[in-house]
Amino acid sequence: MTFTTPLTTRWADNDVYGHVNNVTYYAYFDSIINLYLIREGGLDIHGPVIGLIVASSCQFHAPLAYPDELVATLRVTKLGNSSVTYEVTVAKAGAETVAATASLTHVFVDRESRRPTPIPERIRTALARLA
Amino acid sequence: MTFTTPLTTRWADNDVYGHVNNVTYYAYFDSIINLYLIREGGLDIHGPVIGLIVASSCQFHAPLAYPDELVATLRVTKLGNSSVTYEVTVAKAGAETVAATASLTHVFVDRESRRPTPIPERIRTALARLA
Amino acid sequence: MTFTTPLTTRWADNDVYGHVNNVTYYAYFDSIINLYLIREGGLDIHGPVIGLIVASSCQFHAPLAYPDELVATLRVTKLGNSSVTYEVTVAKAGAETVAATASLTHVFVDRESRRPTPIPERIRTALARLA
Amino acid sequence: MTFTTPLTTRWADNDVYGHVNNVTYYAYFDSIINLYLIREGGLDIHGPVIGLIVASSCQFHAPLAYPDELVATLRVTKLGNSSVTYEVTVAKAGAETVAATASLTHVFVDRESRRPTPIPERIRTALARLA
Repeated sequence: MTFTTPLTTRWADNDVYGHVNNVTYYAYFDSIINLYLIREGGLDIHGPVIGLIVASSCQFHAPLAYPDELVATLRVTKLGNSSVTYEVTVAKAGAETVAATASLTHVFVDRESRRPTPIPERIRTALARLA
Repeated sequence: MTFTTPLTTRWADNDVYGHVNNVTYYAYFDSIINLYLIREGGLDIHGPVIGLIVASSCQFHAPLAYPDELVATLRVTKLGNSSVTYEVTVAKAGAETVAATASLTHVFVDRESRRPTPIPERIRTALARLA
Repeated sequence: MTFTTPLTTRWADNDVYGHVNNVTYYAYFDSIINLYLIREGGLDIHGPVIGLIVASSCQFHAPLAYPDELVATLRVTKLGNSSVTYEVTVAKAGAETVAATASLTHVFVDRESRRPTPIPERIRTALARLA
Repeated sequence: MTFTTPLTTRWADNDVYGHVNNVTYYAYFDSIINLYLIREGGLDIHGPVIGLIVASSCQFHAPLAYPDELVATLRVTKLGNSSVTYEVTVAKAGAETVAATASLTHVFVDRESRRPTPIPERIRTALARLA
């Protein structure tokens, strides 16, 4: 199973070369991941367990530009005890091919100590559905 | 007449206080304005006439937070020879009250000389519909 | 007295028109204000009293562009019981004129209730030095 | 040889967890790379040859937080005919260890056709000094 969500681009996403800046793609990735954790996993962003990104990478296949409407897709490629690795793609709405493919790894930690902690049960269940 | 568009919030829109940072609201304003200019006014962002913001202001009425879905609304409050002043509001989708009310003034200039130029006819026609 | 700080521009600050996007200026304003509150006023961003921006405005006088090095300057124009209004300017380092002049109003609130609260004493003392 | 530059953090760099958001690190990387290309390689951002990021990745070792002052360091790990791969690190000013290590690959292309083109001579010379 995959999770998809629409995303809107912003004027300032375009850099001087007239396309969405490479940095901004990571904001798209960040947003679909946390949307899923909040909506499906019940993540409380003010709660005791938080997810920190420890590694991320992206292959850029094709340009995007404001005011494109986008669709992001989320999968889970590895689900560990306290960490999860996601694959995220971003495409123009209606396009047959993706503009970028990314991998990001979250480690869940105790908010105060910042030490790894098992993934909370409700989040794990939600993540397992995308594996 | 007004123009409205949906906008999606992003994870990084929230600052450390857990709400959309005040700066980010201006990115919403910027986006609905340019969306209207491009879609309805035929603005060519690589063309010879561009709009520069010379003044902007915002009153913040209520907090927004990721992953809120938003609706922005655009009106024209003053349409001059080479400048236009917009009123923009942003609200949570479905909310009865707006979260912020803003005013922004564009001066249209020649891309190279950066000197004021009359608003191109097609853009003026589109703006007049929102006045 | 005024407070000044250097700021570095970023590649993505430039929009498609080749200059720093109007939105980004507000990120500069936000940064010098909070820098002063943290360094001079002892603001604890995880503490019980936080400052929320309720109004902001900017007049844009001249363009800035990455990789310009900037200098921001902070003054206090009105110091109330629970609110403060700042004037912030941003200029290229070494320039004789400012690129933008802004006004921003902070209301200090209780973090949980979000209700206005008197400005904490140490912060007030720091702000009074800029009045 | 390496190239280093100071970078200033911004209030909005911190996300709700109180540290610089993972996305923002890529804005740091983007900025030191383009600073070097502009200052040392004579890159004209309005010129006929531009560099597009086709792949990027980052390992996050330690948190950063506003208002940290940062130092970024740039090296070249692979210099091809039309592409270059950079290694960038970011650290708190004065710190003995880096907070993040990244790899980014630029392909130089013709601005209009977006087809790969040999790296312009002056840029190549500058890049070779960091190899």
